[in-house]
Amino acid sequence: MSDDTITELRTQLRAFAGERDWEQFHTPKNLAMALAGEVGELLEVFQWLTPEQAAAVMDGERAADVEDELADVLIYLVRLADVLEVDLAEVSRRKLGRNEHRFPSDEVHGRADVDPREG
Amino acid sequence: MSDDTITELRTQLRAFAGERDWEQFHTPKNLAMALAGEVGELLEVFQWLTPEQAAAVMDGERAADVEDELADVLIYLVRLADVLEVDLAEVSRRKLGRNEHRFPSDEVHGRADVDPREG
Amino acid sequence: MSDDTITELRTQLRAFAGERDWEQFHTPKNLAMALAGEVGELLEVFQWLTPEQAAAVMDGERAADVEDELADVLIYLVRLADVLEVDLAEVSRRKLGRNEHRFPSDEVHGRADVDPREG
Amino acid sequence: MSDDTITELRTQLRAFAGERDWEQFHTPKNLAMALAGEVGELLEVFQWLTPEQAAAVMDGERAADVEDELADVLIYLVRLADVLEVDLAEVSRRKLGRNEHRFPSDEVHGRADVDPREG
Repeated sequence: MSDDTITELRTQLRAFAGERDWEQFHTPKNLAMALAGEVGELLEVFQWLTPEQAAAVMDGERAADVEDELADVLIYLVRLADVLEVDLAEVSRRKLGRNEHRFPSDEVHGRADVDPREG
Repeated sequence: MSDDTITELRTQLRAFAGERDWEQFHTPKNLAMALAGEVGELLEVFQWLTPEQAAAVMDGERAADVEDELADVLIYLVRLADVLEVDLAEVSRRKLGRNEHRFPSDEVHGRADVDPREG
Repeated sequence: MSDDTITELRTQLRAFAGERDWEQFHTPKNLAMALAGEVGELLEVFQWLTPEQAAAVMDGERAADVEDELADVLIYLVRLADVLEVDLAEVSRRKLGRNEHRFPSDEVHGRADVDPREG
Repeated sequence: MSDDTITELRTQLRAFAGERDWEQFHTPKNLAMALAGEVGELLEVFQWLTPEQAAAVMDGERAADVEDELADVLIYLVRLADVLEVDLAEVSRRKLGRNEHRFPSDEVHGRADVDPREG
């Protein structure tokens, strides 16, 4: 049995959906919407905070909300990747490798003005 | 050294940001916005597809875009959790455990009309 | 006094924020996050619905939620545009005019496979 | 003929979709996804900016991008409301009226710690 978090979560989510006969709802479009909905809830926690308050959010009364929303985002992401048969670990490693080449540290050092479309 | 995807990715992303002096940009608010931006790009791939086309997206010309966006979502999610010092694996396991109790399979079998606010 | 909905809403929202001393929170980043949060809530209403159920949503028990979320999206959009001093009506008219030229009806008739990045 | 921006835009978007035989793609779910995609693009403009840079964004080289994304958000919002047969102006006025009562200025003056779920 795998010790990898994503692999384990994927297996559990597959069983979770199967036991509830929820595969019918877990289409790529629906899961992508659910993922976006959870990210929206995460944004709502942070939206009115100053940068300082946001940095200290885990010391405050909304810490559990943040944990919850981060978990929900990972859960829907892993489930969506599974339904699409995408190896999330593999594509992330590959993407990060590409980013290493696209953003050479001597060129982008301390600069945020890189077009996000390129990233 | 850990074999866990999330742990490995977290370590690499920390180094990636450090080498580029990008920690200054990686505030919780900024990373939450970046996460939402990537989810938006994912939605754009699926928005006009029929459910059937969406189910077959990995056989088509946008497969690489889907892989890319899924990777980007995971990357920003892992980085955000790291900056917030949240153990993403742990909170996800806990959340899934809670969901098992909140949605007993005999009560919610085949039903999607559960208030997402409650989930 | 203007009869235009957007102009009227802009004026009212400006007063609403002023009376509550909320201008300090209404920065572009915060308002963009709030806008995304409301769109996330809108997605949550639709995420598990079949296309047929979604088309009939205004006849069901979630009709008021949909109205509420659509209103919230417009409210934050108008407020964000005001803070940025963007004439929302003018830029929308201009954008629609551009779209008329970019998507000639004889070329794109019945086709959805236009790259959204180009739109 | 109406001078109201939203009414005018609604009429034009209806014609735009009709001429291109795009009504088939303009389902509530698809339009909600498209709306979220555009908000995602808006977030991408702002994500790495400091609050100061964000406040000055309309003086910089990304001003046209901001105008474009704000326009796209309004366009999809108006189109979605039309497809759902929701009177966007009316529901926004009503929501704002409700907010006036829910957030009495003497109680919430200068405070952002109001649960967004309640708003």
